Amino acid sequence: MHRELDTWFIEHRPSHLDELFALLSIPTISALSEHKADMQAGAAWIAQALETAGFENVAVMPTGGHPAVYADYLHAPDAPVVLIYGHYDVQPVDPLALWETGPFTPTLRDGKVYARGASDDKGQVYMHIKALQALLSTTGTLPVNVKFCIEGEEEIGSAHLDAFVEAHQALLSADVLVISDTTLYGPDQPAIIYGLRGLCAAQINVRTARGDLHSGLFGGAVPNAARALVSLLSTLHHAEGGVAVKGFYDAVVPLSPQEKSAFAALPHDDETYRSNLGLTALQGEPGFSTLERISARPTLEINGLYGGFQGEGTKTVIPCEAHAKITCRLVSDQDPDQILDLVFAHLQEHAPAGATITMDRYDSGRPFVTGLDSPAIRAAAAAYKDTYGVEPFYMRMGGSIPVVETFGRILNLPVVMMGFGLPDENFHAPNEHFTLSNFDRGLRTLANYYGRLAEAMAPST
Amino acid sequence: MHRELDTWFIEHRPSHLDELFALLSIPTISALSEHKADMQAGAAWIAQALETAGFENVAVMPTGGHPAVYADYLHAPDAPVVLIYGHYDVQPVDPLALWETGPFTPTLRDGKVYARGASDDKGQVYMHIKALQALLSTTGTLPVNVKFCIEGEEEIGSAHLDAFVEAHQALLSADVLVISDTTLYGPDQPAIIYGLRGLCAAQINVRTARGDLHSGLFGGAVPNAARALVSLLSTLHHAEGGVAVKGFYDAVVPLSPQEKSAFAALPHDDETYRSNLGLTALQGEPGFSTLERISARPTLEINGLYGGFQGEGTKTVIPCEAHAKITCRLVSDQDPDQILDLVFAHLQEHAPAGATITMDRYDSGRPFVTGLDSPAIRAAAAAYKDTYGVEPFYMRMGGSIPVVETFGRILNLPVVMMGFGLPDENFHAPNEHFTLSNFDRGLRTLANYYGRLAEAMAPST
Repeated sequence: MHRELDTWFIEHRPSHLDELFALLSIPTISALSEHKADMQAGAAWIAQALETAGFENVAVMPTGGHPAVYADYLHAPDAPVVLIYGHYDVQPVDPLALWETGPFTPTLRDGKVYARGASDDKGQVYMHIKALQALLSTTGTLPVNVKFCIEGEEEIGSAHLDAFVEAHQALLSADVLVISDTTLYGPDQPAIIYGLRGLCAAQINVRTARGDLHSGLFGGAVPNAARALVSLLSTLHHAEGGVAVKGFYDAVVPLSPQEKSAFAALPHDDETYRSNLGLTALQGEPGFSTLERISARPTLEINGLYGGFQGEGTKTVIPCEAHAKITCRLVSDQDPDQILDLVFAHLQEHAPAGATITMDRYDSGRPFVTGLDSPAIRAAAAAYKDTYGVEPFYMRMGGSIPVVETFGRILNLPVVMMGFGLPDENFHAPNEHFTLSNFDRGLRTLANYYGRLAEAMAPST
Repeated sequence: MHRELDTWFIEHRPSHLDELFALLSIPTISALSEHKADMQAGAAWIAQALETAGFENVAVMPTGGHPAVYADYLHAPDAPVVLIYGHYDVQPVDPLALWETGPFTPTLRDGKVYARGASDDKGQVYMHIKALQALLSTTGTLPVNVKFCIEGEEEIGSAHLDAFVEAHQALLSADVLVISDTTLYGPDQPAIIYGLRGLCAAQINVRTARGDLHSGLFGGAVPNAARALVSLLSTLHHAEGGVAVKGFYDAVVPLSPQEKSAFAALPHDDETYRSNLGLTALQGEPGFSTLERISARPTLEINGLYGGFQGEGTKTVIPCEAHAKITCRLVSDQDPDQILDLVFAHLQEHAPAGATITMDRYDSGRPFVTGLDSPAIRAAAAAYKDTYGVEPFYMRMGGSIPVVETFGRILNLPVVMMGFGLPDENFHAPNEHFTLSNFDRGLRTLANYYGRLAEAMAPST
């Protein structure tokens, strides 16, 4: 079967490139209202490609914003249901002058396709469609059940996706979610992202007097909101680096020896990392490596501070209010709301005399981790190894991708992130491109993956 | 002589009011360039009044900004030289709609003159001229030597006064400086301001990385400038309230028992003070009363904070820079530059790893105190008691008046601040007014004061 698939991919490569170029020519910039019709065209193009590939129940579905495209193929009884998420919208293209060729005039140079969306994420979505079409064409069926959910608002925060998934839980229900919207570790080194940190965010408000007070007339006898804020925020961390909020780490599951080994296997040099960022020192929680700190450990960061006089020069004022923006990155079983409760309790407990503390809460997201021993992860690793010849790196990302959290939370399913872009392919920047050797290897990896997934997740009857 | 003076003041009261109204009718708003000609007219008016009163060497002198008026009467050998400082410029008048009568249409209501500048400071300047004219008219001479320096930029920060005083040190040299630009403690309770706090001001800058970093991708391993700033600023004070900077208090002279008694004699209720300001608690340096804390003790206040994201909602950024504005109020022998040196040394010593600290310094001023046993103060107290029937309160003001510092520093002389306004006479606000009973008592107090000053400061030959 490998040879047959390979032949199919080789024979169809010219038409695949033609099709990919056609998709990349549609300026599906979700952020700009003048591209509303282009967004419709982009969704229709994806729908048509799915139809052509042999998928059923193809539908361009309203979301309250730009439409999402659904399609399925559910003819593999006893095999798992795979939900494939991706997006057909792209980032804006400013500054246009920095593009060597037009962002929506796909161009082949040095084995790379240059166009907005080439790697993020149209190219990777297209690969899933073609990998599955290859299996259907060459075998007449698919080894797994497949559902596609390709949205058009990822680059503008997926504002309507929560409600869409909530409203269509049965339609979207699956056994595993696969997303190809990330990158390889390097040109010949694949990586599987098996975890993301969660997020909670708040603004801390400190108030002291009714109004600002003159520092000459009142200074020395009255509370100062800026001082109170500073004193309060300084209690949030231990001097050594960890978070000092009581209970903050209670729901954090320790790293398994397997994960510790995976972290240790990743190439990383603290000194290079430090100097690349222009830092004079690194800092962090004692007992953890830099890579563990930025992806597998929770954090509490001050994202911003403001209060009192902020203009040029000086003003002799005692501020009556001061504010801080904070976010926590969360891991394992940390619950965003509970963490903010703990933070607020800490702030109340440490509030200086004369200071009233309030907290505004913002949107949050839960962390997710798919166990390294999950069949979905093991199948992905095997597929990568077949194509790239090396074991993939196993990585957790320190960031939070809200759509992953949305699917994980609402549909309650493991998530596998298999990316085929490269870190230097200018996601979100001018001259975005996608390397064709990874397009070719990606098609084969995905076709391989679905077969392996069927085996790995077969019910043990 | 008292009777003769009294008769003179009574006989001339109608013309005094006419003259005062004429002075108050000139819109000498120093801040607004369209009033440049009015400023010239105001200076000329003062010069003419000094000429009429019998002063010599009257001159409207250029300063680089609005002119200053000089005049002298130096015919009292062996008697001290008194320099009288005041200002003929006034604050802007917005919002005009809140004035019951025009700010430059002086109006008498309920024994008060309503006009911009009535109390701050034209009315009080005019009283000095007339008190001395009364002495000259009734006795043919003055008991002291007198120099006037009436400037036109007090309400806009006296930007050119330093250079002016510096350039005319010999002309302005004196044995005592008298300023009437403050208020009584209450309607029948005079007060002598015998000290002001000094001031130094700076901006503290913290930098960590080359640019802001993503809190998801880097959070947990890299320094955060907002956290570093907060941690740094939190070390500036002891938990109990005092300033923790090493050497900060070294040049502070302890309060004398006499001053402690003067503070204790001032009516003050912490609970009323607290609730009037809308505070839930007072705070300050242990071992000192509220009034001592706000006027006789040095402070370090954070006047403002900024760094990172300050907009609506949340942004997952690790700020690479953060800033704080600070001011110190200074007393006794504290030197503004030395204090900033100590603060900077403290910041350097406590700088968290990975944070680079810099400091921008702003304008500063030295503290001043005229000893309660100074002859100039004793004479003022006696003059007040003669007229008001009570001992004045002795007060230090927590604020800093740069002109006082300028004169004190460049001319090196004691300063007596004898005010005749009232705290509720709307200095700087709509419906500024001056109470005529204090105009009448003020004239008599000042005429009395100059005689007493001559006696108190007579050389003990």
